[in-house]
Amino acid sequence: MIVETLAVGTELLLGQIVNTNAATIGSRLADAGLDHFHQAVVGDNLDRVADSIRLAASRADALIITGGIGPTRDDLTREAIEAATGRRLIFDEAYGEFLRSWWARRNRVMPESNLRQAYKPEGAEFVPNSKGTAPGLKLLHDGSWIFAVPGVPAEMVPMVEDHIIPFLQRSGGLEEAVVVSRLIRSWGESESQVGELLDDLFEEGRNPTVAFLASSGEIKVRLTAKAATQDRANALIAPVEEEVRRRMGPRVFGADAETIERVLLDGLGSRGWTLATAESATGGLLAGRITSVPGASAVFRGSIVAYDADVKQSLLDVPAAVIQEHGVVSEPVAEAMAEGAAHRLGADCVIATTGAAGPDPHDSEVGTMVVAVRTPERTRVRTLRMPGDRERIRTYTVTAALHHLRLAMLSERDEELHGGLRWA
Amino acid sequence: MIVETLAVGTELLLGQIVNTNAATIGSRLADAGLDHFHQAVVGDNLDRVADSIRLAASRADALIITGGIGPTRDDLTREAIEAATGRRLIFDEAYGEFLRSWWARRNRVMPESNLRQAYKPEGAEFVPNSKGTAPGLKLLHDGSWIFAVPGVPAEMVPMVEDHIIPFLQRSGGLEEAVVVSRLIRSWGESESQVGELLDDLFEEGRNPTVAFLASSGEIKVRLTAKAATQDRANALIAPVEEEVRRRMGPRVFGADAETIERVLLDGLGSRGWTLATAESATGGLLAGRITSVPGASAVFRGSIVAYDADVKQSLLDVPAAVIQEHGVVSEPVAEAMAEGAAHRLGADCVIATTGAAGPDPHDSEVGTMVVAVRTPERTRVRTLRMPGDRERIRTYTVTAALHHLRLAMLSERDEELHGGLRWA
Repeated sequence: MIVETLAVGTELLLGQIVNTNAATIGSRLADAGLDHFHQAVVGDNLDRVADSIRLAASRADALIITGGIGPTRDDLTREAIEAATGRRLIFDEAYGEFLRSWWARRNRVMPESNLRQAYKPEGAEFVPNSKGTAPGLKLLHDGSWIFAVPGVPAEMVPMVEDHIIPFLQRSGGLEEAVVVSRLIRSWGESESQVGELLDDLFEEGRNPTVAFLASSGEIKVRLTAKAATQDRANALIAPVEEEVRRRMGPRVFGADAETIERVLLDGLGSRGWTLATAESATGGLLAGRITSVPGASAVFRGSIVAYDADVKQSLLDVPAAVIQEHGVVSEPVAEAMAEGAAHRLGADCVIATTGAAGPDPHDSEVGTMVVAVRTPERTRVRTLRMPGDRERIRTYTVTAALHHLRLAMLSERDEELHGGLRWA
Repeated sequence: MIVETLAVGTELLLGQIVNTNAATIGSRLADAGLDHFHQAVVGDNLDRVADSIRLAASRADALIITGGIGPTRDDLTREAIEAATGRRLIFDEAYGEFLRSWWARRNRVMPESNLRQAYKPEGAEFVPNSKGTAPGLKLLHDGSWIFAVPGVPAEMVPMVEDHIIPFLQRSGGLEEAVVVSRLIRSWGESESQVGELLDDLFEEGRNPTVAFLASSGEIKVRLTAKAATQDRANALIAPVEEEVRRRMGPRVFGADAETIERVLLDGLGSRGWTLATAESATGGLLAGRITSVPGASAVFRGSIVAYDADVKQSLLDVPAAVIQEHGVVSEPVAEAMAEGAAHRLGADCVIATTGAAGPDPHDSEVGTMVVAVRTPERTRVRTLRMPGDRERIRTYTVTAALHHLRLAMLSERDEELHGGLRWA
């Protein structure tokens, strides 16, 4: 069962909003074992929407159109389905009545334009909308199913999850085709280095397939298996995952939704250690990442964001002489920040950051970030060179800093693991 | 000059990442006056990528392909261009040499797979990549331009902005059709309330057109004018902008790239006031937003993230009795946190947050966020009810907290302005 998605809306082409609907539907289709080979976006133009519907319906078994079914005049999806299929729009009296009473119950006058929502192409059914007044459409035309749903995610998602996907699974007889993905998360190597480590796993036609994703300095390896059942798909994935983990060693820190911040908090919690941060260049982002994890409060004590040099002295007890001698962006200052935060915030472990995030183009220090990680055993400091703009420098430093603490904890258990890892 | 975009990557179809590149390129094309009628996404499959290239090249004057030009074997864009155009891939000795020396300068061994990046279709040129080692491609084939750029936004954006768009504007002779957009930013009303205030400005065929965007609790009004020159487009926008600002009053806080954090720092700087934050529920995100602005250090002293209740007492001097009597999520605690931070961090103004961001479903407090804003004149406290999940609650609270300080500063100059604004 091959499904395509088509998003309708000039605001998407103009980049005023991002097409998150396509990603949402894509992940639901993958979970359901439905194939999804093409996504398209087209503006509020009758001919182009109609052409896009024709093309998608000719290639796929089903098409899900998002957007363009509201009450206003720039909502053209109904008319485009009419143009693409030759099925004329018919007014549905019952839905018209429903709309009138919906507004009447709220003691409001219904704008007449709302009645546009009661039209459907000949042969189509409405798909119920539990969150709004615009119904979806469902139509079988020339052997392909055409669905139209609202562009508003809160209305679209329940219609796709509760009606369209179960319907497509049933009509595709899909119990026996499940797709399962496993995301193995790593840090500490470049994409091409990971590629060479795993090169032979890429052979055409393998099940599971292997793919890479790079984001925020992390490399993710995705294994995707297709099988009759969830259990069989998992059984195909297991030995490949084991092999990937064996080759990549401690570079792998988690899988699927296990972000570095979650893995780190779990590791600290299991040792009974608490965490604090002392931030200059990252300005609170490190604490923000850590506290994005529900339940972080069991481990995380807090942070001192010492943006001004005075505050480094008054709240983190960094000696003025150390700042004077080495400058604010220096390893001794990062180390003193970590010590100060451990004491002031009563924490076993601390991550401290100082650096120059830019964008002053005359400052050769821009991109120099110093990270200190303190455990009860010792404090390690590293100077990193981060490329990119202010935002990238800050977010990559946050990611690197979290990984440095994880690796420091690992290497205390098993010092020799450490040697093979690149520290940047 | 009609341009299409094509994103290559199975991870997009599976919904593992969102196609933000399409929106980024879309907005740049719109600003440049280039037409953009179709966006497509296709997976890492040679035949389907090649078919998508053929279709786009047949409809448009230029195609920008994002993704699939990295060094690994699932990067297929080069081979797909070869298949779609019949132009075979040729190894570029000079680029191969550049890659070898790039790695050698870093004292690292280049994985041989990196040399894939030195191949280009017959007749193509490389597009320089200032942020990475994968060059882009530029090829004229059968009257259409085909460009390929990396999928990583940090590498893609400079290539599109600095090379591809200026080139397309020149080759389209585009001086005489300029599109200028002006984004007016507001906070404090719902989208439909702003819609009613501005209803008559939406008439068909107006120049500039008026559109709404809602994000993170802010409502943005976008005016888009098309004219022969930049100056004429600006002249069309100016009176409409003035009218929008007149009707919306102090709800408008800025335009275009003037984010609330930037506007707030400018306002504080012009009064000679310094700022600090004291954060519990927002866990550092508020400081992170403020320090995203280059030069924030002129105004921002730092933050105490008091995630644990102990830390609220030891570092923010919140009396234990106040926590005992009112609970951690309370207006007296937020007010005491603001006082404590002003004193400990030596700041004139403070934003303090405490609350319950969830997701504990048994906690009826989830979504209750208390914000205190302190100026040298007085401290105001508000209890907000935020809908949504943990991430949404935290980011909307950060945005609301920044706006509350701006409005507090405004209302001290002009107390009556204040009455008409919704405080949530």
